[in-house]
Amino acid sequence: MTLRWEGTGSDGRARAGILHTAHGEVPTPVFMPVGTAGTVKGMTADGVRATGARMVLGNTYHLMLRPGAERVARLGGLHALMDWHGPILTDSGGFQVMSLAALRKMDEDGVTFRSHVDGSKHRLTPERSVEIQRLLGADVTMCFDECTPFPATQEEAAKSMRLSMRWAARCREAFAPREGHGIFGIVQGSTFEDLRAESAAALRGIGFEGYAIGGLAVGEGQEAMFSTLDFTVPMLPEEQARYLMGVGMPADLLGAVRRGVDMFDCVIPTRSGRMGRAYTSRGALNLRNARHADDGRPLDPACACPACRRHSRAYIHHLLKCDEMLGPILLTWHNIQYYQDLMRRLREAILAGRLDVEAEAIEADWNCAHDD
Amino acid sequence: MTLRWEGTGSDGRARAGILHTAHGEVPTPVFMPVGTAGTVKGMTADGVRATGARMVLGNTYHLMLRPGAERVARLGGLHALMDWHGPILTDSGGFQVMSLAALRKMDEDGVTFRSHVDGSKHRLTPERSVEIQRLLGADVTMCFDECTPFPATQEEAAKSMRLSMRWAARCREAFAPREGHGIFGIVQGSTFEDLRAESAAALRGIGFEGYAIGGLAVGEGQEAMFSTLDFTVPMLPEEQARYLMGVGMPADLLGAVRRGVDMFDCVIPTRSGRMGRAYTSRGALNLRNARHADDGRPLDPACACPACRRHSRAYIHHLLKCDEMLGPILLTWHNIQYYQDLMRRLREAILAGRLDVEAEAIEADWNCAHDD
Ligand SMILES: [Zn+2]
Ligand SMILES: [Zn+2]
Repeated sequence: MTLRWEGTGSDGRARAGILHTAHGEVPTPVFMPVGTAGTVKGMTADGVRATGARMVLGNTYHLMLRPGAERVARLGGLHALMDWHGPILTDSGGFQVMSLAALRKMDEDGVTFRSHVDGSKHRLTPERSVEIQRLLGADVTMCFDECTPFPATQEEAAKSMRLSMRWAARCREAFAPREGHGIFGIVQGSTFEDLRAESAAALRGIGFEGYAIGGLAVGEGQEAMFSTLDFTVPMLPEEQARYLMGVGMPADLLGAVRRGVDMFDCVIPTRSGRMGRAYTSRGALNLRNARHADDGRPLDPACACPACRRHSRAYIHHLLKCDEMLGPILLTWHNIQYYQDLMRRLREAILAGRLDVEAEAIEADWNCAHDD
Repeated sequence: MTLRWEGTGSDGRARAGILHTAHGEVPTPVFMPVGTAGTVKGMTADGVRATGARMVLGNTYHLMLRPGAERVARLGGLHALMDWHGPILTDSGGFQVMSLAALRKMDEDGVTFRSHVDGSKHRLTPERSVEIQRLLGADVTMCFDECTPFPATQEEAAKSMRLSMRWAARCREAFAPREGHGIFGIVQGSTFEDLRAESAAALRGIGFEGYAIGGLAVGEGQEAMFSTLDFTVPMLPEEQARYLMGVGMPADLLGAVRRGVDMFDCVIPTRSGRMGRAYTSRGALNLRNARHADDGRPLDPACACPACRRHSRAYIHHLLKCDEMLGPILLTWHNIQYYQDLMRRLREAILAGRLDVEAEAIEADWNCAHDD
């Protein structure tokens, strides 16, 4: 049987469930740390596992350039390469080609571009993207699409979305079903309800193992994102996983879970950690700030990660000031732990039917007069 | 009782023993990873412990500048700050002042200098160095001395060494004895046998809990270092620990252990790891080299570190090529593990009375026709 999602409970529009994959079961809602180039930046796989993370994301664009999809396959696949034994979702490369690659040229068949690393020329088509994801060994393959830029006129958004739908049909065709593996379609259409409806209907017509919502978290703001979710999520099948791509801040996750989203990925916890930022149960902290220099308290007393259980804010501030690798390492670890703890708390609240109360408590803690 | 060393066996001039400290026992010969600014670069304390390391070194110069000795004391000492529960040896700051600080001015009383970080003015004297090391919480305090540059004329070396000996007396005087803590004297005298003898006699006259050999690994080469050890080690007391500062490559450790040295520290395993270099039972490897791109073998099949048990050379090569933090993290981990494994092997060989055979086997493996 291909990969499938099983609902185990709901509370309002929010859902709890289990994603059954070739590499194990993943309770949802789930946050997937991003392992761009075959590593969650600054973490060993053991460290990622220790946070409770059960599933990670890999980037087709980065991995096709380095070390190369065929090489990953020769080396035993991405799971073996990065020592990750849980499921892996790979994106299609489309988003990164548009944001990172040079000299992009798109046609009906696909995209030709030059590598941002060495200028070498490459081509991605729906078929090649699916092939690369198969070579990497992805449990969840994503359709190759165009992430519509924001803002876009209705006409631009429609044109872009319809191309993505034609590509989605080609991706589904190119995907070889395998036990515990699946391919997700991606709903586009910017913030236009009728375009989202057209896109969702097209994808449901093709049929996928899961449905992603793309083209959000691209500058539209949280309010527009939430209102787009409000009308888009109900357009998706009840019995399959829903994945909001590239989201987000803790408050974004909370709002999206309440709107029925099951899966998330985002570079924020890892990237912010490298920049000196910690997300905690009492809001965000910038550990570069001199006020932490003599602060013997942990980042977050509610957190069980090594940064919080073993070290003080003063120590992490010191590490950042000295450009010591351990500063980003500890903050990345903590942030991933915090995201995992948050998702676990939301899952439990959904199953207990008290998500509204729990969400209010979480938000109150974020917004309480922080002594930081 | 102050810190002491207890011999447990010997083989030729090589010795095995146990260093009894306020933070536990350390089997010798021992290699101490360097935790310059309160962190072994790129490693969590759990990672360092996992390699089998039992004792680490901290740098007075770096820590007095950032975060500051008094601040470290307020935060509970260096052990708490860096989550290291084993013994810590701190150097005196003398060597780094001479190699890193700007506008150094030395007089009979001490050294005035400007920080290489922010240009701020500081002063180190024997008394202040000992005080800083007490504030840090060092199990082993080192005498503040001048590391005689190499090459030096006999006259220069004599003048420098005699200043260090006057400072050594002041350090001993300034050191407050505490249970399980001790202060080590440092033999200077460059490569001159009569100066080393004069220095050793002066230190024995003062009396220390251990004796270091300083002023080596400063460009004299392995042959001169070994011949200096050949005549200097016998000048040191039999019943106390002998520490060769800042050494070295695996072959340096092997040769120095065979000459009766008990303790070592060096940045080579950590610094080389960050540069892409791995020390293995079959010699050194440069993982940046393109020949590793498709090599599915571990760095060192004889090693149990996460880099070797979970990953391939190809993966580590890929990480280095992408400037991923995990590359240096894994190589640092491996190198520290390799150094710890080497020292354990030497300790066991000494206790079994088969050090010559073991040393030959180790060297043969290093020098075997490496397929790398
Ligand atoms: Zn934490
Ligand atoms: Zn290893």
